[in-house]
Amino acid sequence: MEPNIKNIAVLTSGGDAPGMNACIRAIIRTGIYHGRSMFGVMQGYQGLIDNNIIPMDARSVSNILHMGGTILKTARCMAFKEDAGMEIAFKNLKAREIDGLIVIGGDGTFTGAKRFGEKYGINVIGVPGTIDNDLYGSDFTLGYDTAVNTIIEAIDKIRDTADSHDRLFFIEVMGRDSGCLALRTAIASGAEAVLLPEKETSLKDLITKLQSGVNTKKSSSIVIVSEGNKYGGAYDIAKSVKRKFDHYDTKVTILGHLQRGGSPSGFDRILGSRLGYSAVNELIKGASMQMVGLRGNEIKLTSLEEALHAHNYKLEDDLLEMTHVLSI
Amino acid sequence: MEPNIKNIAVLTSGGDAPGMNACIRAIIRTGIYHGRSMFGVMQGYQGLIDNNIIPMDARSVSNILHMGGTILKTARCMAFKEDAGMEIAFKNLKAREIDGLIVIGGDGTFTGAKRFGEKYGINVIGVPGTIDNDLYGSDFTLGYDTAVNTIIEAIDKIRDTADSHDRLFFIEVMGRDSGCLALRTAIASGAEAVLLPEKETSLKDLITKLQSGVNTKKSSSIVIVSEGNKYGGAYDIAKSVKRKFDHYDTKVTILGHLQRGGSPSGFDRILGSRLGYSAVNELIKGASMQMVGLRGNEIKLTSLEEALHAHNYKLEDDLLEMTHVLSI
Amino acid sequence: MEPNIKNIAVLTSGGDAPGMNACIRAIIRTGIYHGRSMFGVMQGYQGLIDNNIIPMDARSVSNILHMGGTILKTARCMAFKEDAGMEIAFKNLKAREIDGLIVIGGDGTFTGAKRFGEKYGINVIGVPGTIDNDLYGSDFTLGYDTAVNTIIEAIDKIRDTADSHDRLFFIEVMGRDSGCLALRTAIASGAEAVLLPEKETSLKDLITKLQSGVNTKKSSSIVIVSEGNKYGGAYDIAKSVKRKFDHYDTKVTILGHLQRGGSPSGFDRILGSRLGYSAVNELIKGASMQMVGLRGNEIKLTSLEEALHAHNYKLEDDLLEMTHVLSI
Amino acid sequence: MEPNIKNIAVLTSGGDAPGMNACIRAIIRTGIYHGRSMFGVMQGYQGLIDNNIIPMDARSVSNILHMGGTILKTARCMAFKEDAGMEIAFKNLKAREIDGLIVIGGDGTFTGAKRFGEKYGINVIGVPGTIDNDLYGSDFTLGYDTAVNTIIEAIDKIRDTADSHDRLFFIEVMGRDSGCLALRTAIASGAEAVLLPEKETSLKDLITKLQSGVNTKKSSSIVIVSEGNKYGGAYDIAKSVKRKFDHYDTKVTILGHLQRGGSPSGFDRILGSRLGYSAVNELIKGASMQMVGLRGNEIKLTSLEEALHAHNYKLEDDLLEMTHVLSI
Repeated sequence: MEPNIKNIAVLTSGGDAPGMNACIRAIIRTGIYHGRSMFGVMQGYQGLIDNNIIPMDARSVSNILHMGGTILKTARCMAFKEDAGMEIAFKNLKAREIDGLIVIGGDGTFTGAKRFGEKYGINVIGVPGTIDNDLYGSDFTLGYDTAVNTIIEAIDKIRDTADSHDRLFFIEVMGRDSGCLALRTAIASGAEAVLLPEKETSLKDLITKLQSGVNTKKSSSIVIVSEGNKYGGAYDIAKSVKRKFDHYDTKVTILGHLQRGGSPSGFDRILGSRLGYSAVNELIKGASMQMVGLRGNEIKLTSLEEALHAHNYKLEDDLLEMTHVLSI
Repeated sequence: MEPNIKNIAVLTSGGDAPGMNACIRAIIRTGIYHGRSMFGVMQGYQGLIDNNIIPMDARSVSNILHMGGTILKTARCMAFKEDAGMEIAFKNLKAREIDGLIVIGGDGTFTGAKRFGEKYGINVIGVPGTIDNDLYGSDFTLGYDTAVNTIIEAIDKIRDTADSHDRLFFIEVMGRDSGCLALRTAIASGAEAVLLPEKETSLKDLITKLQSGVNTKKSSSIVIVSEGNKYGGAYDIAKSVKRKFDHYDTKVTILGHLQRGGSPSGFDRILGSRLGYSAVNELIKGASMQMVGLRGNEIKLTSLEEALHAHNYKLEDDLLEMTHVLSI
Repeated sequence: MEPNIKNIAVLTSGGDAPGMNACIRAIIRTGIYHGRSMFGVMQGYQGLIDNNIIPMDARSVSNILHMGGTILKTARCMAFKEDAGMEIAFKNLKAREIDGLIVIGGDGTFTGAKRFGEKYGINVIGVPGTIDNDLYGSDFTLGYDTAVNTIIEAIDKIRDTADSHDRLFFIEVMGRDSGCLALRTAIASGAEAVLLPEKETSLKDLITKLQSGVNTKKSSSIVIVSEGNKYGGAYDIAKSVKRKFDHYDTKVTILGHLQRGGSPSGFDRILGSRLGYSAVNELIKGASMQMVGLRGNEIKLTSLEEALHAHNYKLEDDLLEMTHVLSI
Repeated sequence: MEPNIKNIAVLTSGGDAPGMNACIRAIIRTGIYHGRSMFGVMQGYQGLIDNNIIPMDARSVSNILHMGGTILKTARCMAFKEDAGMEIAFKNLKAREIDGLIVIGGDGTFTGAKRFGEKYGINVIGVPGTIDNDLYGSDFTLGYDTAVNTIIEAIDKIRDTADSHDRLFFIEVMGRDSGCLALRTAIASGAEAVLLPEKETSLKDLITKLQSGVNTKKSSSIVIVSEGNKYGGAYDIAKSVKRKFDHYDTKVTILGHLQRGGSPSGFDRILGSRLGYSAVNELIKGASMQMVGLRGNEIKLTSLEEALHAHNYKLEDDLLEMTHVLSI
């Protein structure tokens, strides 16, 4: 039997990711379509504590589908990790008779949601939203596809100038614990090499690879460096390489936070819409403590328990092998 | 035991699609990596007949990963449907000791390849390349993701001017037999309605939907029309609607061939690279008369037989239902 | 001595153009900086009559600089051409003590503003905003630069597919009375030919040009057609050409209203900001019945009288000659 | 009387800039149109010395109009500063009867060209090509407009994430000696403040400005830092500010070399085409030791002497004042 979910709130937490607005729009409109009262919580868990909870209707989410960032904003919130904070949050929800909560974010977001749901019996659904694509239970996380496109557009521009000058470029991309962005963008940009947090690549191997490019008359080389790799940032690596390999002029670019922004790609708009739509439908059908995710071409549920336990992204070794072959 | 595949040729046929160059690059370099001699055939099957077959090395495919179109060009070829044409094609391949052929294209391309392979014992692998995403055996076809992004970027621009003028826009997108592009871009652009070749939508329902937008104070409306829908093109539909619903100023845009072009998205560059890489690896391992495709996050084989027999894309009814809910 | 301009209103009228929002932002903030009360009029002159006039502060124009369209919307207004309509408009302004009016638009907009200003003694400044770049007194009009970029990005995509298929494309761009967009985008896209409203190009000459491209081994040809040329639209021309020249497969694209939208280019954002800033400063200094425009690298005044009298854009014959030379 | 210019060579030197390829295309085709033999010199002055001088025809420059970088490549060349180097360069030109030389680049490029032309009587024309827009005699230099667009697209993305987190961003843009890019992109992106090499802005003033944004409820702030400003790079400034102003979370982005790349904007494609076309026409008419430049809407000559003597870009104080007003 369908539980008596009356009012539903949504929040975004952790780093923002393109497609979050598409997801918020889908959540609000699907809830309203089913006759629920819908609320947006500002600044993640902080808004629950600060009682910054806003009633939303279908027009509140007009013209946001194509926008980067999140209209609900996001913030870190230490207070929500304390019992006292959670207690206030619960009272604020209860005062509005909100009994369903949808959280969009990553690991940290889900950990808080799980504890909160277990403690107060609020029905909770998680939506995987992070550009890092490092969550278990969804082939792709919201924002990842857009981030890949943003990064390769930047590298395409850098390739123009690299080719014109016979240069070697080190480009640092996001991904402190996960090399997924680095590996996939290395393939998509035709990079000559990639340094990942999960793999130890010796500098010697890197230099051998670069030298072989010189031998086969490559006019420039691009190395993608994941911010979490063991040699430090792109600047440090560039210096170490330069000492032993001085064929090209060497330059470094740190792409930084522009990787988080931008209008979401079609893929992320569709994914955000589907995840938001399903999150509400599943909540209404009685699901709780679950994450909605994309597997193959379908939306499937994974328990938050399992998503958090087995959250580590497995590095795709076959893709890493492929980058070596394709950059000969 | 590994067959004695010595030389491999690749061609593109049918409509061009973004990502074909990424795939060609992967095919040539993977073959060379494995010590094979590699050839590119110009203008599809026509080049087989015209003996327009060019030896390629790793540098022949430098700087093409990010380019739209196909450096091998593509063309329709009636002569290849005749026995005489096939005979000449075979002799041209034989003269170069080419015993493996990779064809990138859609249904028509695969039909020719299958007949050719069966008749002359050439080992054939197909790669699904079409913006229509209407092939069985691959969740996504090469070029589709880029086409979605191209279309929604165009609609985003049209939305600017639609909002500024309180206008109703009919936008015609490609897909003569398949509404996949129309349906997905309707979701990704927040269109108010979509007309598909697979579904009969009465004009009355369309007008009811548009009227409800007026009632809930939408400042503009966008209707996506698939070129293959039963009411004719976007111009015809706009006229029929205008006769019965005159709230907005009405405009029509036919996106046309710009949907086929453009630098491939990250998704299509990675997909093209993976499909090309696998096509060569599978060919070398002994596969023939197979299509490589993406299922979930893995590359899988489907026989050309099956791909051609069950080729129809199934319209995703749940996504169509979702467009109605999300555009309230 | 400085006149006692107290309150200032701004409206956008005619076709919308990218950069209008940048200009509105500059107007509102410059006025507030100088201590004036600022108002936005919705839907052009219609809003004056409907009393749809909204007080605006510095935050009302946050986050609009980069947006296409106009937040004030625009509309045609027949009632403002009548004395009765103007009378109501004046009363609505008077009730708010608005004595300065800035209008952003083209010829039609300025004609209305001039008559209104003369009749009721309202101080009026015009800002040239149209993608057609056909106004006297400003080297560039607001929105034109963005439209050029939008068009050439579309043509770049079409060139991909044209090259892949050895095709001839006819692409219709906006500009009913002025070939400025067509001529400039023909140069910027390397088009083989361009048909303009101001020039009679015989079909024979066009075919000779296309034939010479075939002779010098061009793999595709692109012809830009201005919507106002004498042979009718791109479809008609394509048909006429096809009858006499059948070397290539022929396709047509009508770019339509996507040319009006999109995030404004840097050029248009800076131009819009400068024009808006100057419009308010000049109004406060006592200017009236003037248009602000860019000449060389400076903002200069032109009387509305002169701007309207000598409004015709002169076709740049040297640029037309150049397109012939550069497309050999 | 027309001098007997027979053969013409073109080279690009110094930093590459978008639009150089459009200019090269125009030069080659205009020369061929006038019956001259045309040559491309690889890697700037180095190619003159290395005799890396290639005959070019109309098809050599097909499909490059829309590409960033320079197909002729560019490099620093110390040897050309020596008499011995110049002597070899001259002999290489003489061997091909090249009596006209067009150089595309900035100050350093023109200095070398002037000395070479004076010494050996080669007819020399300079084309201003640099993203810095810091040359005398041209309102805009080739590549500057594209760089502005590239930078503001990056900042638009960063604004998304800045708004979502209430953050303060410091963004470093190119321009060691000239704040032109920084100032113009600050206007075009709505930055709250800008630090320029030409101006001393006290940190105190910067903090006052940021505090006033907090007071008027700005949700984020962006400060553009020109790489040549007196406080050091963006990292140093961010640290200094953070010590005294801790309202926002602070982040830094260094855009780096992506600012040099990318497909040229319409403006730069047209500018490059016009400058190249005029350079050849002027050379054939007898001009030498001149730079072609855009003033207003016309191409005008400036002597290299004057261009080098008075080369300093004058900071536009009125635009700087405007950035303060518009970011209230």
